Amino acid sequence: MADPATISPATLLKDELDIVIPTIRNLDFLEMWRPFFQPYHLIIVQDGDPSKAIKVPEGFDYELYNRNDINRILGPKASCISFKDSACRCFGYMVSKKKYIYTIDDDCFVAKDPSGKDINALEQHIKNLLSPSTPFFFNTLYDPYRAGADFVRGYPFSLREGVPTAVSHGLWLNIPDYDAPTQLVKPLERNTRYVDAVMTIPKGTLFPMCGMNLAFDRELIGPAMYFGLMGDGQPIGRYDDMWAGWCTKVICDHLGLGVKTGLPYIWHSKASNPFVNLRKEYKGIYWQEDLIPFFQSVTLPKDCTSVQKCYIEIANQVKAKLGKVDDYFNKLADAMVTWIEAWDELNPSGASKSSDLPNGASK
Amino acid sequence: MADPATISPATLLKDELDIVIPTIRNLDFLEMWRPFFQPYHLIIVQDGDPSKAIKVPEGFDYELYNRNDINRILGPKASCISFKDSACRCFGYMVSKKKYIYTIDDDCFVAKDPSGKDINALEQHIKNLLSPSTPFFFNTLYDPYRAGADFVRGYPFSLREGVPTAVSHGLWLNIPDYDAPTQLVKPLERNTRYVDAVMTIPKGTLFPMCGMNLAFDRELIGPAMYFGLMGDGQPIGRYDDMWAGWCTKVICDHLGLGVKTGLPYIWHSKASNPFVNLRKEYKGIYWQEDLIPFFQSVTLPKDCTSVQKCYIEIANQVKAKLGKVDDYFNKLADAMVTWIEAWDELNPSGASKSSDLPNGASK
Repeated sequence: MADPATISPATLLKDELDIVIPTIRNLDFLEMWRPFFQPYHLIIVQDGDPSKAIKVPEGFDYELYNRNDINRILGPKASCISFKDSACRCFGYMVSKKKYIYTIDDDCFVAKDPSGKDINALEQHIKNLLSPSTPFFFNTLYDPYRAGADFVRGYPFSLREGVPTAVSHGLWLNIPDYDAPTQLVKPLERNTRYVDAVMTIPKGTLFPMCGMNLAFDRELIGPAMYFGLMGDGQPIGRYDDMWAGWCTKVICDHLGLGVKTGLPYIWHSKASNPFVNLRKEYKGIYWQEDLIPFFQSVTLPKDCTSVQKCYIEIANQVKAKLGKVDDYFNKLADAMVTWIEAWDELNPSGASKSSDLPNGASK
Repeated sequence: MADPATISPATLLKDELDIVIPTIRNLDFLEMWRPFFQPYHLIIVQDGDPSKAIKVPEGFDYELYNRNDINRILGPKASCISFKDSACRCFGYMVSKKKYIYTIDDDCFVAKDPSGKDINALEQHIKNLLSPSTPFFFNTLYDPYRAGADFVRGYPFSLREGVPTAVSHGLWLNIPDYDAPTQLVKPLERNTRYVDAVMTIPKGTLFPMCGMNLAFDRELIGPAMYFGLMGDGQPIGRYDDMWAGWCTKVICDHLGLGVKTGLPYIWHSKASNPFVNLRKEYKGIYWQEDLIPFFQSVTLPKDCTSVQKCYIEIANQVKAKLGKVDDYFNKLADAMVTWIEAWDELNPSGASKSSDLPNGASK
């Protein structure tokens, strides 16, 4: 394998990565990202009123989908794509034809590292995705594939090749990703701590995956990145990325794929309104007390050898076990199935690719 | 609970913490630690020739045990304490009467943080031990109890109280804790990356615990901190702390206790000889391929409600399952039982204390 320290990823993956941005406004934030994003293709998913024109700064290569486009492309299956919620972004994952996706919110700006240098978030995500993960044993010096680090004494040699990395979860300086109650209690808290680490989230451990600054290997895990039913007409919001993260982690654990978190940081500029957030979140805050034990106990049978099969199996278990928590989960389980049908329709070759994973089921 | 950010631990635990140092030489290294260690009591475990006098700098409060003392105090049970190996340090854990232990190697010096300030390693360990751990769900902003951090969106509220922290595992700048093969391949590698994080190692995940810079709550987990049979007359060395770490982690997971790793850093001054290390390690490198799956699959029955009971159960399983890997593990299993007998003999009240853990078995 190439030494990740010597990879020059910005140029490497130019034709293999799409940047997906959900938005309701003009994309002026892209100006700051121009040096890093301009070589890449953007997929903009316009939320809300489709008649509104979204301005994209000159010189970016992009395609833009509004609600009318989504309805036209997916027909009745468009029901699985959320409206008036940034969960709509997952439509962009579905229409992409690239191997990698980076998704970022339009209130996220370029952060600086402790030396004052602008952080190329995308480059770090690509480094994370191109180097293996180590989900089976914890390395105390963090990512052993980084320059200047390695596996420490006591790390089994048979595990040092690692597994393919499917997800790279980046973090946020300035406004931390807090829930509404924490926002209300700590309105002035800012994240100023730059933790210079990337690490694998161990197998069997769930984490709160935030969609603000996230990259993944679409071929390895794409169909699991469904952001659920949120926003318009739904009883819940702000759990879209969490839902995707829990499903994704369980499937990665089953298929022997890795999930990394840590670097890169972006600068999250503005806290969303905690009162609005509380209204969106309160059922999620309540339900997650059932959801976490559910996902902690999900087991997938050996014949679930593709992401799609795993995902359908989880949808079935959601219906069977969470349907009694609230009828919402029956609707969500149906939407999960619709999502996979729509995914396979738009990705006929990708579908066969993912059912032919080299690793197969590891559980 | 007190806000850990406001705790002034250095004064707080002066009478509740012993510093355990295994050594074969004069303890000049203590000069550099004087501002931080002098208020504390030291337990020095002298390895090797007991007739040699070990000089301790003026002004430190200490007790010193050499091999003759160990033999006198433990009688035939002294066989469980290693000789000519720093594994002998665990004798110090046994004779301590304090609630907390900090153990450090005599080639470890005070490190500096990125601002150039001397790091008070002991103070950070105490902060780690006095704030809870979060083994059941991963927090992407690391230790949520640190000033400036909290639980992120999607973290279940029912898990935010955390669990008592039993172990604080600190790291090393300069010479990283590599095994002999890695030392040989990368003789010039130095750890220069200061990662400003403390985190809980998730439940169910094993890690390589290094004994160089380690603190723990003796009342919560002491009897699991047996450093095994290493050195003189044994086929293996440099796996003493690893063995303790694997046993400890399995027991912490079972009893609902936490293990943290990360800060504080010490400055590790000198790499040990990789050729000597290779001779000590090679069986361990080979055996650990069996040991890790063994510890990953150990389950402890519900009636193992004290550390001692858990430890005896692990000793039984070691004999049953690892005895066939090598006869050494039969000897080790016997020594594990002897260790617990000796511990309970020297700690009659501690023994009843640990069998009365508030949390009970969680598995």
